[in-house]
Amino acid sequence: MNKSSDLRIACVMVGLPARGKTYIAYKVSRYLAWLGIKTQIFSVGNYRRKLVGLNLPHAFFDSHNTEGVKKRREAAACALNDMITWFEKDDGTVGIFDATNSSKKTRAWINETLAARNIQVLFIESVCDDDDIILCNIKDVKLSSPDYSERDPDEATEDFMKRIKHYEETYETVTEENLTYIKLVNVGSQYIINMIRGYLESRIVYYLMNLHTRPKRIWFSRHGESLFNLEDKIGGDAGLSPRGEQYALKLPELVRQNIGDRPLTVWTSSMTRTIQTARHLDFPKKQWKALDELDTGVCDGMTYDEIEAKYPDDFARRDEDKFNYRYRGGESYRDLVLRLEPVIMDLERHENILIISHQATIRCMYAYFMGLSHEQLPYARIPLHTIIELKPKAFSCEEKLYHIDVGSVDTYRPKGQTARKLKDDKLVSNIPVSSEGASGEIVDSNNAPILPIKSIGIARTNTC
Amino acid sequence: MNKSSDLRIACVMVGLPARGKTYIAYKVSRYLAWLGIKTQIFSVGNYRRKLVGLNLPHAFFDSHNTEGVKKRREAAACALNDMITWFEKDDGTVGIFDATNSSKKTRAWINETLAARNIQVLFIESVCDDDDIILCNIKDVKLSSPDYSERDPDEATEDFMKRIKHYEETYETVTEENLTYIKLVNVGSQYIINMIRGYLESRIVYYLMNLHTRPKRIWFSRHGESLFNLEDKIGGDAGLSPRGEQYALKLPELVRQNIGDRPLTVWTSSMTRTIQTARHLDFPKKQWKALDELDTGVCDGMTYDEIEAKYPDDFARRDEDKFNYRYRGGESYRDLVLRLEPVIMDLERHENILIISHQATIRCMYAYFMGLSHEQLPYARIPLHTIIELKPKAFSCEEKLYHIDVGSVDTYRPKGQTARKLKDDKLVSNIPVSSEGASGEIVDSNNAPILPIKSIGIARTNTC
Repeated sequence: MNKSSDLRIACVMVGLPARGKTYIAYKVSRYLAWLGIKTQIFSVGNYRRKLVGLNLPHAFFDSHNTEGVKKRREAAACALNDMITWFEKDDGTVGIFDATNSSKKTRAWINETLAARNIQVLFIESVCDDDDIILCNIKDVKLSSPDYSERDPDEATEDFMKRIKHYEETYETVTEENLTYIKLVNVGSQYIINMIRGYLESRIVYYLMNLHTRPKRIWFSRHGESLFNLEDKIGGDAGLSPRGEQYALKLPELVRQNIGDRPLTVWTSSMTRTIQTARHLDFPKKQWKALDELDTGVCDGMTYDEIEAKYPDDFARRDEDKFNYRYRGGESYRDLVLRLEPVIMDLERHENILIISHQATIRCMYAYFMGLSHEQLPYARIPLHTIIELKPKAFSCEEKLYHIDVGSVDTYRPKGQTARKLKDDKLVSNIPVSSEGASGEIVDSNNAPILPIKSIGIARTNTC
Repeated sequence: MNKSSDLRIACVMVGLPARGKTYIAYKVSRYLAWLGIKTQIFSVGNYRRKLVGLNLPHAFFDSHNTEGVKKRREAAACALNDMITWFEKDDGTVGIFDATNSSKKTRAWINETLAARNIQVLFIESVCDDDDIILCNIKDVKLSSPDYSERDPDEATEDFMKRIKHYEETYETVTEENLTYIKLVNVGSQYIINMIRGYLESRIVYYLMNLHTRPKRIWFSRHGESLFNLEDKIGGDAGLSPRGEQYALKLPELVRQNIGDRPLTVWTSSMTRTIQTARHLDFPKKQWKALDELDTGVCDGMTYDEIEAKYPDDFARRDEDKFNYRYRGGESYRDLVLRLEPVIMDLERHENILIISHQATIRCMYAYFMGLSHEQLPYARIPLHTIIELKPKAFSCEEKLYHIDVGSVDTYRPKGQTARKLKDDKLVSNIPVSSEGASGEIVDSNNAPILPIKSIGIARTNTC
C-alpha cells in the first residue's frame, strides 16, 4: 500500500571530466543501498570502453571527430536503455547515469526519454574551476582508470588535460529552468537547487550537501564489557564489569597513542555502559539517544537460551532474516539503520569522531562505510575492547583495529540467534593487530583467517 | 562538555517587502524552539514603529528621504544591539534578524559586527518576481500589519506597492561570495546555497528547503481504545478493545464526511493498535517506526499505581519535569521530539496526511504546529476516538476536533504521572464539536472550559 513503491528516480550526472562525478555517484549509491533503496550506477565510460576498447587518445573525444561522437552516442544510448530496462524489469528505484552529459541537447534527450517512462530525473552537476582540485583528482583517480592502463603518468595527465579541453569547447552548464537539478560548485562551497519536489529527491540533495572531501577518520569502540555481558543477558542498562572498567581506564592511552593530537570529539549513546567507558577521555562529548543499542523489546534482559525456550519461533525467524527481524515490541536492524541515518549524515560532515556505542549500532555504521549488504550487516564482527579505525578514501575505506589486552573477556557471546558460543578471549586475542596500528587479519578461534581486512567492501561474515 | 553549546547563529533575513521574510523567520523560530534551541526574532519593523510611530506614508521609505533613512538605520542598530545583548547575556543560540537588509553595505556591516563577536551569520534571502504571489502576500499579511491599521485596503495596497518601489530602486540581491547564505527563489522553485559549514546551519537550510506554502491540512487520531487501556497499563503492543474496534469501523465514514475527497495518505506507527485502527481506511498507507509510542522502558506494561509503588522517586521526578524525564531504559518527550523530527520534515513537504499514532507522539507533533512550549507539550490533551484537524496558516494554525461517539470509553486514563483519573466518557463527550466540524471548546469534567480552541498557540494544559 505504500505509494512510494512506484517511485523511480534517475540521477543524471553532469560535469566536465575530473569533477568528481563518479565519486558522487558512488557515494549516493552506497548511501541509498544502505537505506535499503535499490540503486545501480550505469557508467557510460564502461559502455564506451566495451564498444571501442581502452587507451583511446584524446583526439577520440574531439567534438569534430565524427566517428568518436557517433561511438560515444552509441555507448550513451546503450547505457540509458539498460537503465530503463533495469527500472522496468528489475524494479529499480534509483538509477545513476554517470557521464558528462555536457550539452543541453543531450540533457533534453535524456529528460524526455525518461519522463515518457514515468521516471523522475534529477540532474546532479559538479562544477569546479579550481585547478588544484582538478589536477589532484586526475592524479588520484583518473590515472588508475582502465583508460590509462600502462601509460606514463605525465603523458597520461597531459592527454587527459587535452581530453578535458575538448569537452570544454562545447560544455554548457545546467541552467534549464524546467529541469530538476542540483549544481555543486567547487566541492561544497555553493549549491544551486532547482525544482526539487519529492521526498527522496530532497533526501539525496540533503545528502549531497553534507558530503565533503576533506580527509577524515572515524573511530568506533563498543563499551567495555558490561555486567550483563557477564551474565550472558542482552539489552538492559547495566554498568561495566571490572574488566570493562579496566578497558575504560586504558582507553585514553590507546587513543593518545593511535589517534594522536587530532581535535577529537567523543560521541556516546545515552546508556550507562558507553558513558562509563568514555568517562576518562578528556575530549568534548556528545550523547546521542540514536546510538543506543538495538531495542530487544520483550526479550530485554533475557539470555539467548531463555529467548530460545520462550520464543522458539521468533528465534528461528530471526535466524532466517536477521536484518529484517524485529524483536516483539522492539527493533530490527532495518529500524536501526533509519534511526542511525542522522548520525551518518552528521558523520559525513565531521572529521575525527570517536564513537563509543554498541554492537548492533556499530554494525550498521560500519556497514555504511564498508559497503556491507543487508545480509552481511548483522553478522559484521565488532569485537569488544577494540577500537576500529576507518579512513574513508574516494572509492574505498581503510580499516585498522587497535586492541587493548585487558585479560581474557571470557563470558562475551556475540549477539544474534545463531550465536556459536565462542570464548571471547580466543576471538579477540587472535587479532594480530598491534597498538601501533598495522593492518592485519581477523582469524577465528582455530586460527584460520575469516577474511582479510582490506580497504574496500570487507565482508567479515562471522558466525554470530 | 557539548562543544555545540558555544554555538551562536544569526539568521539575517534579506528581501524586498512582501517576500515572506517574516513568515520564514516565524517558521524557523517555531521549528528551532520545538527542537529545544533557544531562538528569538528581532524585527526591525517593530523597532521602527516604536521609534517613529504607525501609519507612515510610503515617502518615509524613499531612499532620498534623509530623515527616513536615518531613523531606519537607528531602528536597525537598536535591533542589532538588542540581539547581540540577547546572545551574550541570555545565552541565545539562534537570533533571527528580520529586515530588508537590501544593500551589500548593510549586509557587510551586519556581518562584520556579528563576526567580531563570534556569532556566525547565515543570510536568508527570499526573492520573488511573481506578481500574483506578491499581491497575495500584501493582501493576506501586510494590510493587517500595524503600519496600515485604519487604512482603506485599496489605498493601503497602493501605498505599499509604492513602498516596495522605493526599496527596488536600491535593492541588491545577495551575490557576496564570502557570505554564508541561502537564497530562496519564487517560493521553493530554486535555492542557492553558499558556504554553509556547520551542522545547525545545514539543518536550518534543509528545513527551509522543505517548506512550502501550498494550502494543506493534517489530521491526527490516536489509535482506538486498546486492551491495555482497559487494564490501565502503559506501553505494550496490545490490540484494540471492542470499543476500539468500533472506532476503527466508524473511522472511514468520519473521514469521508469531514476530510472529503482529498487525495489522502494514512501514516500509522508500527504498533498493532494503530495498524488495526487504520485497517478499514481505503487509502495508501505508510508505517513509520518513528511514530511508535514513547518507550516507557522498565515501566512497559505496568499501571501507574504499580510504577508509583515500584519507582516512587522516578514518579516524582517525572512530575517535576515531564518533558525531560526519561523512563529507565526508555525515552523522554525530548527524545521523542528528536525521533519525530524527520516526520515533521516530511509533513512540511506533504499535503493531506492522516496520522494514526499515540498520545505522546501526537502531543509532540501537535506542539510543533500549535507552538506549545516544552512545559505545555506533555500536557496537551489528545482525546481518544477523536480526529484533530490542523490547518496551518501563515502565522497561526486552525484547529477542529471531530469526535466519534462510540459509547463511553470509561477506562481510559490520561498518561502522565500526575494523572487525575478522570472518566474518559466525561472528558471526551464534553467536547462540543459536531462532525460538521465547527470549532469549539474543550471543557473539563465539571463543564468549565479549560481553554478555548483558537487559531494560534493554543495551550490546552490539562490535568493528566
